[in-house]
Amino acid sequence: MNPAKITILAPGLIGGSVALAATKAFPKAKIAVWTRRHESLPSIRTVLPKADVSIDPSLATDADLVVLGSPPSALPELVRSILPFLKPSALVTDVASIKGPLENIMAHLLQNKARWIGSHPMAGSEESGIAVARADLFQNAPVILTPTPTTPADVTRDATSFWQALGARVLTLTPQAHDEQIARISHLPHLIASALVLAAGHDSLPLAGSGYRDTTRVAAGPSELWSEILCNNRLQVLASLKDFRSSLNDLVSALKKGDASALAKILDDAAKIRRTLPTS
Amino acid sequence: MNPAKITILAPGLIGGSVALAATKAFPKAKIAVWTRRHESLPSIRTVLPKADVSIDPSLATDADLVVLGSPPSALPELVRSILPFLKPSALVTDVASIKGPLENIMAHLLQNKARWIGSHPMAGSEESGIAVARADLFQNAPVILTPTPTTPADVTRDATSFWQALGARVLTLTPQAHDEQIARISHLPHLIASALVLAAGHDSLPLAGSGYRDTTRVAAGPSELWSEILCNNRLQVLASLKDFRSSLNDLVSALKKGDASALAKILDDAAKIRRTLPTS
Repeated sequence: MNPAKITILAPGLIGGSVALAATKAFPKAKIAVWTRRHESLPSIRTVLPKADVSIDPSLATDADLVVLGSPPSALPELVRSILPFLKPSALVTDVASIKGPLENIMAHLLQNKARWIGSHPMAGSEESGIAVARADLFQNAPVILTPTPTTPADVTRDATSFWQALGARVLTLTPQAHDEQIARISHLPHLIASALVLAAGHDSLPLAGSGYRDTTRVAAGPSELWSEILCNNRLQVLASLKDFRSSLNDLVSALKKGDASALAKILDDAAKIRRTLPTS
Repeated sequence: MNPAKITILAPGLIGGSVALAATKAFPKAKIAVWTRRHESLPSIRTVLPKADVSIDPSLATDADLVVLGSPPSALPELVRSILPFLKPSALVTDVASIKGPLENIMAHLLQNKARWIGSHPMAGSEESGIAVARADLFQNAPVILTPTPTTPADVTRDATSFWQALGARVLTLTPQAHDEQIARISHLPHLIASALVLAAGHDSLPLAGSGYRDTTRVAAGPSELWSEILCNNRLQVLASLKDFRSSLNDLVSALKKGDASALAKILDDAAKIRRTLPTS
């Protein structure tokens, strides 16, 4: 797709990076950015000096592409606020970490109003806010689209084309498969990193090397947002936690016995899986 | 200290990086590197073209500083092999991840033969071997020295001076305090990262973003070495695991109830601790 106007709503790190990356990828497109809070206008204008920035939802008027940057819980209200301004050919997508609980609500709200598909860019940082947005955030990053059986092929195709133009590697999953797999690859690691930080505490921090630094990085992320994500994907996270505890028990059982070769074997099973991950 | 000759034995990533960093920090010093295996000589000579490289332990002759790069289990035998060549003023240190179980053995072996102190540089990578050694590996990295009540002050002072010359931030702990704190900040995170990889499995890897990548990076490390480290620090790792499970239970309990504000509070406790870690 080659959008003439892109409207981004509620930009934080992800939405802001979409705006920056889209400015580069579609130099002729008009970029419009909406924020709920008047106080956010100056920081958005600093990052995006050429964008049309406002607290007026009519910014969505005539947009070919609308990207919703808000946390999951704020999405329905955000969509309601722009419904009067959407043209039917507009492609509307989000960037939320959970898909299943939102899909029916979003599809219903946007039915006959615009073209809807869920997106989840697997990119980010423990930092948040538009001030840390980066034009290259999506380079080689996976972006998961979550079409349903009723999603028209042109919607999936246009969303794919958009994210690819931003440098992303696009995959598609059903909303349910997304939530299940993302629980394992993102939500569970966040929960575990937070528990690791609490277990290690303050006192040992001056000793921390790159291992602790990387293993726990995500635990510095925004707590309210992560709590919302985890609670909204609770059943899938709890299922992945069960597998985690089972794997941990295998490791701990070998460790308790002091069985170095059994422990090395399990560590090696993990190392072999981890080493198949392509370096970014 | 200003060593005229530095001998590094059994160099992998850490020992090789010591050799590279020492070449820069002490441009006039003679650098000698010993390896057990004849087959390793070419790769060491590639990384350290100016060093004196050999499989002959007499390379330790006249060394002012001796750095033992081997895994913990190989340290006593390695020290025995160089005892005939050490001068009494030589400072001997290691780079192993565990300290308590080795301290008495090493101190006893080196008594009246050379000056001994344990070192643990908190630097490294999931990769291993001298081919990935880097001259800047110790820049701003913590290096923990583990003097005991019988360690002379000049030994601690000289070891501090050496590691500082390599760019490190030097701390001292007793061997026991080292093992206890490193269990929390390094050994437990390794165990947990491996369990996370096993729980997530292969299938979700194409979806992995930077969160999974960082959280699990260390799990790609050398399995045999890590099994040895974990088994040698078993009691301390199991103690830290108990605290981890307790913190995880608090998180999971809030998650099971779907109590987003209680969960956010615990996540925020972790985030506050993690945010106090200085960026490297």
